[in-house]
Amino acid sequence: MTGRDCSIANALSVVGERWSLLIIREAMFGERRFDRFAANTGASRDILAARLKSLVAAGVLRREQYSDRPPRHEYLLTESGRALRPVLMALMEWGDTHATAGDPPTVWEHDCGATLHPTLTCGHCGAEVLEGTLTPIRLGAIT
Amino acid sequence: MTGRDCSIANALSVVGERWSLLIIREAMFGERRFDRFAANTGASRDILAARLKSLVAAGVLRREQYSDRPPRHEYLLTESGRALRPVLMALMEWGDTHATAGDPPTVWEHDCGATLHPTLTCGHCGAEVLEGTLTPIRLGAIT
Repeated sequence: MTGRDCSIANALSVVGERWSLLIIREAMFGERRFDRFAANTGASRDILAARLKSLVAAGVLRREQYSDRPPRHEYLLTESGRALRPVLMALMEWGDTHATAGDPPTVWEHDCGATLHPTLTCGHCGAEVLEGTLTPIRLGAIT
Repeated sequence: MTGRDCSIANALSVVGERWSLLIIREAMFGERRFDRFAANTGASRDILAARLKSLVAAGVLRREQYSDRPPRHEYLLTESGRALRPVLMALMEWGDTHATAGDPPTVWEHDCGATLHPTLTCGHCGAEVLEGTLTPIRLGAIT
């Protein structure tokens, strides 16, 4: 792989494909089974099978057998998969404003009682990470 | 399109492709020109040309002529494109931990002086958006 050495690129190598993130969205909604992933994402069965396999290989999902006869499996988020929540929430917030016509299809209430509008903040000081507030200490090399 | 009516899916229709987000990353680093996008993302020239065209059509980038003879164009982030910062930062943070071996290739200092570890928080109360803190008010319908 050429281009910039970068964790964004590495992340996209794992989840940088439309169906992968939609599968993870459904897993966060509590779905575990192939047929539900198919119906709720709209992915074809072939694509879904391939994406589930690669997400399991990447350690984002784990596959567990829940029935012996017939043998049936379900897919659960690993810790790594659950850690994708901020990525999905940031995509949702952007999509609500910039990619969706009309009202947001999905709305969440945070446990403080407010409708959720997620904000990306600095983990140290808590301020929003705005344009112009960041200085690169190190940038990934371009090869 | 079948599947769940969802702003994540809508967002991924615009930027849900590896090269698109890497182009936007480079535009956030200040790059504007085709050759630099090609070198810094590693995308082939054909793919890059197609992605730039669709990002301009989607209003994420705008294309401006900067030279008459020969006619040359550069690509600038729109407001919609700049609003993708939280998506890229969330991908970087996840990739640092879950998709990159060794030290993070890129490190940012926030203007509070700390090394940036972005956190997704509730825009109302400022608390981190953790698993179990959200209740759906409305979920996108599945069609």
